[in-house]
Parts: sequence; C-alpha cells; structure tokens
Amino acid sequence: MPPTQCLAIIGVGLIGGSIGLAARRSGLYAPILGVDADAAALDKAITRGCIDAADELPSAAKRAQIVVVATPVDQIAQHVRLAAACGDALITDTGSTKARILDAVIRAGDPPQFVPAHPLAGSEKRGAEHARANLFDGRLVILTPTARTTASRIAQASAFWESLGGRLYSMSAEEHDRTLAVTSHLPHLLASALAGLLNPNVTGFAATGFRDTTRLASGDPALWGPIFAENAPHVLAALDLFRNRLDDFRHALDNNDAATIHRLLTEAKGIRDDLGN
Amino acid sequence: MPPTQCLAIIGVGLIGGSIGLAARRSGLYAPILGVDADAAALDKAITRGCIDAADELPSAAKRAQIVVVATPVDQIAQHVRLAAACGDALITDTGSTKARILDAVIRAGDPPQFVPAHPLAGSEKRGAEHARANLFDGRLVILTPTARTTASRIAQASAFWESLGGRLYSMSAEEHDRTLAVTSHLPHLLASALAGLLNPNVTGFAATGFRDTTRLASGDPALWGPIFAENAPHVLAALDLFRNRLDDFRHALDNNDAATIHRLLTEAKGIRDDLGN
Repeated sequence: MPPTQCLAIIGVGLIGGSIGLAARRSGLYAPILGVDADAAALDKAITRGCIDAADELPSAAKRAQIVVVATPVDQIAQHVRLAAACGDALITDTGSTKARILDAVIRAGDPPQFVPAHPLAGSEKRGAEHARANLFDGRLVILTPTARTTASRIAQASAFWESLGGRLYSMSAEEHDRTLAVTSHLPHLLASALAGLLNPNVTGFAATGFRDTTRLASGDPALWGPIFAENAPHVLAALDLFRNRLDDFRHALDNNDAATIHRLLTEAKGIRDDLGN
Repeated sequence: MPPTQCLAIIGVGLIGGSIGLAARRSGLYAPILGVDADAAALDKAITRGCIDAADELPSAAKRAQIVVVATPVDQIAQHVRLAAACGDALITDTGSTKARILDAVIRAGDPPQFVPAHPLAGSEKRGAEHARANLFDGRLVILTPTARTTASRIAQASAFWESLGGRLYSMSAEEHDRTLAVTSHLPHLLASALAGLLNPNVTGFAATGFRDTTRLASGDPALWGPIFAENAPHVLAALDLFRNRLDDFRHALDNNDAATIHRLLTEAKGIRDDLGN
C-alpha cells in the first residue's frame, strides 16, 4: 500500500465534490478536507462522502500534500495565492479558463508548486449532491504549465489527475482558452441565447431537439458569467466565426439555394457523426 | 374487438416505421402496408415488423382505410394527391412544415379527406432500423385542418394519432410553421452551424456540452434541407430574433458588462429549467 496523502479541496460543488469521491475511490488520499464559504455546501459534501471534514483554507493548505482549487474562475487565482502562502503542497485547479488565472498568479509571485489544470468534465447541474466518483473517468485533463513549472510538479499533478481517472493533455494557457472558446464557451452562449428566445406560450412545442440544443443553458450563471468575462476576447472571436457560418445559411435560405443548404448540412453531419454520442 | 382497418404507410423511414410499430401495438390496424421508392427500406421495415407487406402507392391507397404520408416534406403533397386520386381513405401526414404542403394540396383540388398533421417526435437517426413503437407516446401531434376539413375527418385523424400514443393539438398551418421555426428548425440550423465550425484537430476537446448542443446536426440532410427550404421565411425571421439575442451577449462581452451577462444567463436558465430534461 502506498502511503496516503492529505488532499484539500477548495470549493466543494459538483466538480470539487466529484474530485473528493474519485479521490476516495482511488484509496490514495486521506484525509480529504473540504473548504467552502458556504456551510451548507460543506454539509452536503460530508453527507455525500465527498470529504472527511470541513476546514479553513490556511490550515487545510498547511496540512495537505495536494490542494485542488475548484472555485469559480474569478476566485481561483486568489485561492491559489492563499494556499501557496501556507506551505509547499502541490496546487492544481479546475478552471475552465486559464490565461487570466495564470496572469494573476504570476503577478502574485508565480508559486512554482502551481500546476494549472482543466478537467473537461462537468454537468449543467450544480452542487455536491450531483457529484459522481466517475465524473473524470476517461476525460481529458488539460494541463497548462508555465516555463517555471518544474517537471517534478508536472509529474505530481499528472499522477493526481490520473488517479481520478483522467487522461492528460498539455498545451499553453493561450491555446487552451482559444480552443475551449469554440468547443465549450460558444456552445454555452448559443444554448443560452436560444433558450432565452423561447416564448413561454410555445414551450409545449419544444421537443427533444430543442432540449438537447439548450441543455447547457441550465448551467449556473454564477460559474458561467465569470468564464465568459475572463475569456471574452476568444469567445468574441469564436462568435464571429459562428456568425459567418450562420450568414452562409442565411444567404442560402434567402436565395432559395437548396444545393448550398444541403452542402452545409452535410458538412456539419460529417463532423458531428465523427464525434459519436 | 373493434374491426381492424387497413393502414398504408407511404415512406417507411424512422417515422413511418415507428408508425407501423405503434399501429401494430394498438391492435387496431391490419394489414399494415408499406410503400417506399427504396426497396432496401421496405425490406428493413418488414424485417423489423413495421409493416406486413410492401405495396405500390395506388393499390395500397385503394385498399387502405387510412393512409399516412411520411415522406420528406418536399414529396408529401405529391403523395397526398396520388393517394386522394385512388379512393376516399383518410389521408394524414407527418410533415415538419405545413403551409407549403397545404398550399400545394389545395391547388391540386383540396381533397377533403386530407388532415395535415405533424407529430413532434423524431430522432437524429434515420431508417426503420431505429423505429420504436413508443416514439409517439405522450408526444404532441399538431393537426392543421383547413376550413374545408370536415369534423368527421378530424375526428377520424384524431382517433388514429391517439391510437399511436399521441396527444392532439390544433393550430393553423401558418402558426405551426412560425412556432416550429423557433422550437425545431432554428435549433437544427444552430446545431449544424456550430458543428460545421469544429476544426478536426480540436474534436478531442469537444465534451458533452458540445455534443448535446450539436446533436441535431446528425440529422439527415435529405430530410432537413427541404424543411429549411419550405419554411425559409419563418426560419429567417427566427434567425433574426436569435441574432438580436446574440448581439446582446456580444455587446455585454465587448463592454465587460458582467451584470448584463449574468442577467441574460439567468433568464435563459429560468426558461430552460422549466422545460425539464
């Protein structure tokens, strides 16, 4: 049996809670400490078995060998700085944006034990009551190390995320933010814009297609607002690309151009079919 | 036991095949005849038990008490006319657009036995191999009768669709097309535009959110191209509403207006949460 490590989870919502369950499943981490400004969230996380005990950030960060910051993206840099000031535990995070967080952490002294991460897993649901031990199984976890991040810290963070079931991938924070703007942030924005259009008196006519297309709109605005704000330039660029594509459809519809409509639909079907379910 | 009626299904794809399975489940229809230009589709429909036998349109329409036209929207009017010329069976259809079909049928003599219908059920999959007997259970079936449609024909069509599990709703063809442009055709167009954006080298970063939002893009272009073409004016109007909403997001992102982003996300979440899963 390898020795167990103390794990501190800052922010015990759906993602933080699932990290706790996956960490417990691995058998490698004990105790698992939870930190959250919301006492009710801590209670739920304890009840669900996501964490062993609630703690304050400084004492949890002092005690832990690994600290995971799973708070909303606009709070991550601050929590990383607080944790780094308390000891030399590995610090990793779950932020859906990376460059702004990294800039703020670098300005605050660039603690070498921080390995930025983004597990591509989640749900439109929120709270530890929806946490799942298998949330990260087979999912990509993107690491965005800086020039200063040491190989040993990257190895430690990689082992941690793999122990939760993740598959690792490394890219720059800039590339991450540009890519996720298209694959994650833009879909959320479109889902919200479409759901927002639905007149209450026609909701009965919204069948499975509308529901699938707008599912992301149920995400927590307190999490997603800051994601859009932090990644605004890349989201705006993705939105421009999307509007160009929409204009192609518009022109074809306007001109009764069945061949172009068929081509656009066929191209999209090929790409979507390749993605699988 | 009520006497059984002969049912003819014109077009034995996913929808036509599911009508056959649901009709068989009801015990009210026999024999169930299938008509399709594609011999392989007929074979699959027989193998799956969707139909009892393959037939030609004229002889099936002569023999049947009920004819359902489940072909692509740009072929429905023609098939309705052909069936109406063969006898006085009830004729109903499954078209996702209504006004253009109805115009064409009216111009061709407005056969009083035609009750236009649109069951709000489907799938991004195609073919009788994906047909399900419960596809219409609890689903809305919209009837768009004209001034000439008689009460007895409406009653007969209503009994038919209810026997397949559907719930009936009546509106004008115009209102149907305007409403479905927002709840069905626009989501499909957005899903296709978004899927079409995905660069092949970033498909690995498209997680469940992207997949949900683009699921409709896997729909059959041979079915959806004609739907967009037939309902182009309403789809373009829906697209304008959507672009206005997108512009609200764009301005808020451009101006770093966190309050407006939060408000837009919150409004959309309220509407989407009310829809359920």
